[in-house]
Amino acid sequence: MRTEILPVRPLTKAAFAPFGSVIETDGAERRLINGGTTERFHALAEATALGEGARAIISIFRGQPFALPLEIAMLERHPLGSQAFVPLDRRPYLVVVAPDAGDRPGDPLAFLASGIQGVNYAAGTWHHPLLALDSASEFVVVDRAGPGDNLQEYFFSDARFRIESLPDA
Amino acid sequence: MRTEILPVRPLTKAAFAPFGSVIETDGAERRLINGGTTERFHALAEATALGEGARAIISIFRGQPFALPLEIAMLERHPLGSQAFVPLDRRPYLVVVAPDAGDRPGDPLAFLASGIQGVNYAAGTWHHPLLALDSASEFVVVDRAGPGDNLQEYFFSDARFRIESLPDA
Repeated sequence: MRTEILPVRPLTKAAFAPFGSVIETDGAERRLINGGTTERFHALAEATALGEGARAIISIFRGQPFALPLEIAMLERHPLGSQAFVPLDRRPYLVVVAPDAGDRPGDPLAFLASGIQGVNYAAGTWHHPLLALDSASEFVVVDRAGPGDNLQEYFFSDARFRIESLPDA
Repeated sequence: MRTEILPVRPLTKAAFAPFGSVIETDGAERRLINGGTTERFHALAEATALGEGARAIISIFRGQPFALPLEIAMLERHPLGSQAFVPLDRRPYLVVVAPDAGDRPGDPLAFLASGIQGVNYAAGTWHHPLLALDSASEFVVVDRAGPGDNLQEYFFSDARFRIESLPDA
């Protein structure tokens, strides 16, 4: 059994690109609409809902905070749909993802999302369930509903991954 | 030319039901997920994207604030898709909608949404463009992209609708 300390990097579009989209105004396509009274930061992410009878739904998640050090013991994925999280409390949170390594996750990567960054996990992307920090925090979530099995979980048995500290602000 | 003063009512699911959904945790179906660390307030709204090649996309809108008194001179609708707004700054905002009256809006109704209430306009629902209050405010928006004409605007010529005051807190 090997033990790895996961470094936590600031979340950026470039680093996250293999796993999905970062939902943020920074660097986004900006359109002026509504007679100039609204800026539209356009199509930061797309909701994918695969399969007969699939629908994209909007929910609110309220996540309890996690404290460090934190062990990443499992990841999950949704093969039939994307899943987007946008923070409603403007508080940073952790994002842990992994590349696929043959129907199981490879080694995870950890990112610190700022309070003004959302993420959209592409369909089939291994990720850890919601990791709020500091306080219970709400997120608007856009994901898939409909028939079919849209949840796969993987519990690491041959390695331990630990997050011990956050990047300096 | 008649002039109407629009009363502003607090936004409730029941009053808004003919026009779409209110996105709020209050009164919602609550599921405990992620080993009990997350509450999921499930399927508060559904994203509709009609027509060949349509997609549900996630954007951020930043709306300039409006001051009272405010004249409602026009409404718009999106026949091919729903459009959801969830406030990211936890500030109240105005929601103005109208029933359809034969391919034009009937008399508008005005609601004050709290900072923890989002709305999802059902496809084809007449509504006013974003009406932030007090300060420039950001909203996460879920709406439709794709081919086809998804915007109809109607400018009132036979009536004036004015919002003069908000309900007492």
